[in-house]
Amino acid sequence: MTKPKKKSALSEKDGVSQPKSTSRDSISKLKNKRKKQPSSEELSDAILKGDKVALSRAITLIESINPEHTHKANKIIEACLPSANNSIRIGITGVPGVGKSTFIESFGSYLTSIGKKVAVLAVDPSSSISKGSILGDKTRMESLVKNDNAFIRPSPSGDSLGGVARKTRETITLCEACGFDTIIIETVGVGQSETAVHSMVDFFLLLKLAGAGDELQGIKRGIMEMADAIIINKADGDNINRAKQAKVDFTRALHLYPPKENDWTPKVITASAYEKTGIAATWELVLQYLDLTIKNRFFEHKRIQQNKQWLVQTINERLKSNFYNHQEIKTSLTQQLELIEQNKISPFAAADYLFKLYNRT
Amino acid sequence: MTKPKKKSALSEKDGVSQPKSTSRDSISKLKNKRKKQPSSEELSDAILKGDKVALSRAITLIESINPEHTHKANKIIEACLPSANNSIRIGITGVPGVGKSTFIESFGSYLTSIGKKVAVLAVDPSSSISKGSILGDKTRMESLVKNDNAFIRPSPSGDSLGGVARKTRETITLCEACGFDTIIIETVGVGQSETAVHSMVDFFLLLKLAGAGDELQGIKRGIMEMADAIIINKADGDNINRAKQAKVDFTRALHLYPPKENDWTPKVITASAYEKTGIAATWELVLQYLDLTIKNRFFEHKRIQQNKQWLVQTINERLKSNFYNHQEIKTSLTQQLELIEQNKISPFAAADYLFKLYNRT
Repeated sequence: MTKPKKKSALSEKDGVSQPKSTSRDSISKLKNKRKKQPSSEELSDAILKGDKVALSRAITLIESINPEHTHKANKIIEACLPSANNSIRIGITGVPGVGKSTFIESFGSYLTSIGKKVAVLAVDPSSSISKGSILGDKTRMESLVKNDNAFIRPSPSGDSLGGVARKTRETITLCEACGFDTIIIETVGVGQSETAVHSMVDFFLLLKLAGAGDELQGIKRGIMEMADAIIINKADGDNINRAKQAKVDFTRALHLYPPKENDWTPKVITASAYEKTGIAATWELVLQYLDLTIKNRFFEHKRIQQNKQWLVQTINERLKSNFYNHQEIKTSLTQQLELIEQNKISPFAAADYLFKLYNRT
Repeated sequence: MTKPKKKSALSEKDGVSQPKSTSRDSISKLKNKRKKQPSSEELSDAILKGDKVALSRAITLIESINPEHTHKANKIIEACLPSANNSIRIGITGVPGVGKSTFIESFGSYLTSIGKKVAVLAVDPSSSISKGSILGDKTRMESLVKNDNAFIRPSPSGDSLGGVARKTRETITLCEACGFDTIIIETVGVGQSETAVHSMVDFFLLLKLAGAGDELQGIKRGIMEMADAIIINKADGDNINRAKQAKVDFTRALHLYPPKENDWTPKVITASAYEKTGIAATWELVLQYLDLTIKNRFFEHKRIQQNKQWLVQTINERLKSNFYNHQEIKTSLTQQLELIEQNKISPFAAADYLFKLYNRT
């Protein structure tokens, strides 16, 4: 997969899967335009000055599987770390069709209108299968994407949720160092990615629809419990009364859960991303939450717990990427899988063989 | 945690968490009784001759986190591998209260009555929290536990589902080498353990209750799709008509799924583990499935795919256990977690530090 090394501005993309549509013409145009690949110092300096282009390029390095890029990315992260950590991180989940993109567009635009700098990221491990990604279709956030005080980045692709989550965590750090004070992390409401996102945000929002006939059933156990607020979206037109009823139902349902460690009672509000109602109210909830949890020190406590989790997850991911990206292991793993295919070796014996090889080199 | 090394028959338990109730008296009695710890050769020879005591001791070695025991366990597994693989592996899941234990007791007793040798294992990662486990209360399977042709082993405890699953996979190998031709693996119907169990069995059974008012809702998406058969349990007394209705409903629901790769149409039957009805019919279903999938070669294909997954999972587990059980890493990890607690280091910098240390030693 790795091409011969050329000093090209595009070489940092070697480790990242690229869409096939890039034409040869535009590649050579870009090559002429950007002759020199910036160093990690140049990139981190630019990021700390708020340069979104540098931020994008550094994130591409984080997402690359090329070890040189990883090394460079680590240096940039290290330089950015002292300036990170000064943001509010908000997670947003909800099943497909609930209107997450439109909500984030309205919410993000509102936040920039009151002076915030907003970065929108995504965690979507399923995108590694389809090679598509949520937020990939940036036209869904037309006005936000053109906004100087907003930065939108689609979900990185990756083989595992762990890998995708690691990349997103590191990206948060760079966005914060770049001056973004509000980080929104989107995830689709299916699978384990909610837990991953929950473990990297301060405030977790669940978007729901009213009148879909499944107000209370069908909600995955655990996700309701994670939510700090539930937004009944699309509360407009004919839907308003049903949304109000859903608000009552959800509020009642939330009261059945035991009180949270942070003394926060999860709130339910109705909103219409389309009519832009409930958007300021959502931010108001976030501020109330911050006020409470900064005073009772839960905010700090939670970040420390998250940092501990990040350490373990970073280690686990790195153990795997070191192993599977090891050149000799790559070759031998393919051979061992073929032997398994032919029923000539057991998985345990194959693992033994690979570990002996790994420990020797 | 590790005690000074003594040549004792009980030392193989050092790496396994033990209940506190073991009295000093009984320890010294046991010490006198079993003076010599059997070698891995002695254990594997005995296992291959069908010795259940040797089997139990070898499984204890698999479950141990003591590296010496792991080494010994690996040697035993290696010796057993050529004699393994000759069994039918059946997974059984269902939410707590559905009557899994009673069903397994009836089903297992029926199987031994027709000449089968039955091993019952469990995968329950939640038990690592409570230190209890499913199947832990063996009195729930009173007659099976006393049956010479049955072997019952509770879920191993462990920090992660991956670890628990690895231990169970290795245990399957030993049970097969010990002559058990039917392996039943129980899991609780909550969480990710179903996927783990599904990846290690040939046939996957879902136990359900009728008349609980939640026939179709509340079933986790994915689990229905994994099932090769659904057993409506407790179809006795007043419940018979509701069970029949549930059978119709589930059969209809199953038809909504796309046909399976193996050409098998999942079946629904009613059973009463208590009245021992539907038990022979369940086995009949398994035989029909085997007949079909051995002919169309799906059986072999699935085992090969599972072996490939086992390889990757075995590698991932071993990468982690090598790292976290490394003596210097253990000490340093504790220190780094303390620094994170005091906000003195970032998780990424801490991971870097630990990897530099790990690669040096």
